Amino acid sequence: MKVTEKLALLKNLMQQYGIDYYYIPTNDFHGSEYVADYFKCREYMSGFTGSAGNMLVSRTETGLWTDGRYFLQARQQLAGSGITLFRMGEPGVPKIFEYIAQHIQPGQSLGFDGRMVDAFYALQLKKIVEGKGGRLITDFDLAGMVWPDRPAIEAKPAYSLAPQFTGVTRGEKLDAVCKWLEKKRADMLVITSLDDIAWLLNIRGEDIHCSPVVLGYLVIKPLECFLFAHKSAFSSRLRQELARDSVILREYDDVYDYLAGVKEGSRVAMDMYVANYRLASVVPESAKIIGVINPVKMMKAVKNPAEISGERIAHIKDGVALTRFIYWLKQNIQKMPLTERMVAAQLEAFRGSVGDYLGPSFDPIAAYGPHGAIVHYSATEETDARLLAEGFLLLDTGGHYLQGTTDVTRTILLGQKATEEEKKYYTAVLCGNLRLAAAKFKKGCSGVALDILARQPLWNMGCDFNHGTGHGVGCLLNVHEGPNAIRYRILAQPDGNVEMQPGMITSDEPGVYLEGKFGIRLENLILCVEKEKNAFGEFLGFETLTMAPFDRDAIAPEQMTEQDKKLLNAYHEKVYETISPYLDRNEAEWLMDVCAPID
Amino acid sequence: MKVTEKLALLKNLMQQYGIDYYYIPTNDFHGSEYVADYFKCREYMSGFTGSAGNMLVSRTETGLWTDGRYFLQARQQLAGSGITLFRMGEPGVPKIFEYIAQHIQPGQSLGFDGRMVDAFYALQLKKIVEGKGGRLITDFDLAGMVWPDRPAIEAKPAYSLAPQFTGVTRGEKLDAVCKWLEKKRADMLVITSLDDIAWLLNIRGEDIHCSPVVLGYLVIKPLECFLFAHKSAFSSRLRQELARDSVILREYDDVYDYLAGVKEGSRVAMDMYVANYRLASVVPESAKIIGVINPVKMMKAVKNPAEISGERIAHIKDGVALTRFIYWLKQNIQKMPLTERMVAAQLEAFRGSVGDYLGPSFDPIAAYGPHGAIVHYSATEETDARLLAEGFLLLDTGGHYLQGTTDVTRTILLGQKATEEEKKYYTAVLCGNLRLAAAKFKKGCSGVALDILARQPLWNMGCDFNHGTGHGVGCLLNVHEGPNAIRYRILAQPDGNVEMQPGMITSDEPGVYLEGKFGIRLENLILCVEKEKNAFGEFLGFETLTMAPFDRDAIAPEQMTEQDKKLLNAYHEKVYETISPYLDRNEAEWLMDVCAPID
Repeated sequence: MKVTEKLALLKNLMQQYGIDYYYIPTNDFHGSEYVADYFKCREYMSGFTGSAGNMLVSRTETGLWTDGRYFLQARQQLAGSGITLFRMGEPGVPKIFEYIAQHIQPGQSLGFDGRMVDAFYALQLKKIVEGKGGRLITDFDLAGMVWPDRPAIEAKPAYSLAPQFTGVTRGEKLDAVCKWLEKKRADMLVITSLDDIAWLLNIRGEDIHCSPVVLGYLVIKPLECFLFAHKSAFSSRLRQELARDSVILREYDDVYDYLAGVKEGSRVAMDMYVANYRLASVVPESAKIIGVINPVKMMKAVKNPAEISGERIAHIKDGVALTRFIYWLKQNIQKMPLTERMVAAQLEAFRGSVGDYLGPSFDPIAAYGPHGAIVHYSATEETDARLLAEGFLLLDTGGHYLQGTTDVTRTILLGQKATEEEKKYYTAVLCGNLRLAAAKFKKGCSGVALDILARQPLWNMGCDFNHGTGHGVGCLLNVHEGPNAIRYRILAQPDGNVEMQPGMITSDEPGVYLEGKFGIRLENLILCVEKEKNAFGEFLGFETLTMAPFDRDAIAPEQMTEQDKKLLNAYHEKVYETISPYLDRNEAEWLMDVCAPID
Repeated sequence: MKVTEKLALLKNLMQQYGIDYYYIPTNDFHGSEYVADYFKCREYMSGFTGSAGNMLVSRTETGLWTDGRYFLQARQQLAGSGITLFRMGEPGVPKIFEYIAQHIQPGQSLGFDGRMVDAFYALQLKKIVEGKGGRLITDFDLAGMVWPDRPAIEAKPAYSLAPQFTGVTRGEKLDAVCKWLEKKRADMLVITSLDDIAWLLNIRGEDIHCSPVVLGYLVIKPLECFLFAHKSAFSSRLRQELARDSVILREYDDVYDYLAGVKEGSRVAMDMYVANYRLASVVPESAKIIGVINPVKMMKAVKNPAEISGERIAHIKDGVALTRFIYWLKQNIQKMPLTERMVAAQLEAFRGSVGDYLGPSFDPIAAYGPHGAIVHYSATEETDARLLAEGFLLLDTGGHYLQGTTDVTRTILLGQKATEEEKKYYTAVLCGNLRLAAAKFKKGCSGVALDILARQPLWNMGCDFNHGTGHGVGCLLNVHEGPNAIRYRILAQPDGNVEMQPGMITSDEPGVYLEGKFGIRLENLILCVEKEKNAFGEFLGFETLTMAPFDRDAIAPEQMTEQDKKLLNAYHEKVYETISPYLDRNEAEWLMDVCAPID
């Protein structure tokens, strides 16, 4: 079916249901960053395949909103569809809610699938629409109705993680939540974020591409928990195991009926920024929703000793794979024809050989030359560039291992000799990476207070990168998880600027992007650790988990301070000591050379 | 009268007025940091003379809450009074509102003078008390009733500042507020902070010690403004001048009647964190209070070109005075007996000789040896230490000039040779000061994102200082003004973390305090300026306004990076060039020596 035909069908349905504007976001029922195929309604309806974009359909205009990463792609894919492209962030381009506020006429209705929009945003939309005497209609999945060959919803087998990996049992985690319930005087907590559910129940699955989670909703009460999920994904053994911890399995869709039936006077705790609108709206008036910051997010962010030692192991495995890959690439760049996608596959093969590897933690970015300047570049069959023995290859990849999740970026010089410009920027990015990782700071600092350490070398040359310096990373979970982050702007949202705490794992990934030339990004994961406690207070710092050499051929030592050189040499010494035992003789000799001290 | 007698009288009055708990804060009707003598009820009632402390009186217990600076002094001054000292910040010590929440019985009442407590805090207290079925009684100044010889309220002559100093006329400033009123759809804005009123009306006074302000309240409406102040303080010429800008003078106390009489449906904008409770509570139910962040605060914080060039001039004058003083001190330390208070007076004399000097911007801190480790030390007759030709003198002082306000700290070595320990810490503090001042950063950074530059040299040695790194400074106004600040913790209050903007003046004052040994603080004022604008965005930085040499005898060059040395040498070169023309030959020769490059 052509997009125009799909839209015609949708508009028919809108008329039938009395809906004037229909909103189709990129989301699932859980606010996931990446979504399973079943949920890709926006992609199906618009033909635009980018990972981010929201759609609004009215009788007179269909609009698609996306961000700068996708302007070109969206323009191409929307050609001929009649859909208007709204370039988010460009001057004069309204946000979707502004567009709705400007266009919707008194008494008109706005529709969307109430499961696809978080409660907080939906309530804002409601205010706009009802302020004009109109109404929200959120009970119908119209896009689903015009999608005949829609993929089935995922229900891959779930599995339980062994205690040596989780460190804390399911029962202990649920007890902690129950203590929290008591403090909040709440009768139940509704958790809808898939990574929080997986962490809390010590289970994993593969219902989302690159994200080892199980589709479900969890309702936690002092004496029992209900996990609303696809029963078929749970073996009877796993069901019994869950039941021993008073976690009772119910069907995925039954959560709405369950919440609609809570007892009069119940206090239902829910994170309105995360829970979908339908969940919030089915709770009866006779009960009370308590808007909270989901407490599991912070519990999960502070890794326990078992998770930390698992992550160290995962990073050694990952470092061995990446180091072997870099050696292989440097050896073969002149010998065989290689493309971006070929080298990504080769790295994947090295990862597959180190044991306990479960798969990539996100789609690899292998971006050669000017492609490196496109921050979220993903090589396709059409763009897949041939690598030459010159310039930079930016390689941002990661893996899930039984012991933990990795995320690492190395920018590799493919030629023998870097240009002055390449060295200048590579060295600035490297110094930023090293200085942030070496920070010693007072407890009480958030990532906002640390960010400048990574950016200062670039800012001093009037340069910057247009993304955060660091994001939290899960332990055999999502490669992006909150609330810890490193950025220089203070966020308005309630848990946007949390203090760094020992046990948090965050990325350290400064970069520089010169359009049409190249991109450089150097990313290690850093674990927050205690450093010193004395009369002046408690000092924290970081331990670098990622173990792979930087590219010494791209470094300009004269641009580094003595301290920078010390940091680099100490890191390289650690990499060599840690990784070399797992390498063959040629690889190990090469690693010794590239890790030799710089002065 | 003894404190016990005063308290007995107060308790009688409490019984008479049906008040169970009576709260006496340190404040005036305007939320001023320093208060005029008339307002020092807490000091009068308790006998405790420290600048910070709040008092709560009940039938069974009288408590005084103060912070760590004053524990010793409060214990001594409260001895025999029967008053319990609550050491704020110590473990287990309740805050006043916690104490009230714990102690107040159902149906009991809490009283305070509604003009002495900000509306936001009063409403929190109200919630606690009314939650227990009790009530607030805020119409009576009981402490004033037991104070027979209370000083008169200040009403010193107000004066108008010339346009070359203010840069922007009163009319232009009021127009800007009126535009803001329109945007907020408000009928009037009530300003109660004295520095904002002085800035807005281009007037100054001397109603508060060290703070060139006029006691008053200002109500701004689109067509007219009412200044509620002591008419006797305004010459007829100044009244006429104000009237030409439609600013009408009314008596100070009439503001309450005025607000009680606003028209039905009026929208009254007020900053509830600043305006006192009575102001908020007299506005009739038929009108609407719009809680806002006082917009004048930000207008005033971003200095205009005339204010900036004024500040540059004020800092040259101040630098000449301070430089001459340091030379004088170094020459005379071995020749004559000197004490902390004597050298403070001598510096005041140097300031008085440079022209346009109006007086100190705060009480000088001259703290010798171990006194330097007491962050808010103020020499009294009893503590006034004799200076010896060894160790550090910490000197934190500032002045008001017609052109602007200064605030500068130098730590001066009185001996010929510093110890290794002295040098180590002095150099760390110096590097922090220089690195913060040299920051180049993206627009969008708040002080939180910059703080680490000043603290890192100390944090790296496991050391810290227990105060903010920087506060905003007024232009011939309060030496502490918001909202700009430099600290590492993110504040919860709405305007606690504003972005740095070109034109803001902030202090840069890292320090280190070793109890029983010495204190070091090095403070310059830094002006935020534009640095570079390119495809990567807008970069800001600082211009150092303060012009006085650091003490080269206390510096350990081997502890500095090459960049640190460059920064120090460039600053010293600038100081020499700027200050030396105003010195006599001996002073200038000495300055050349102490400003010579270090390598």
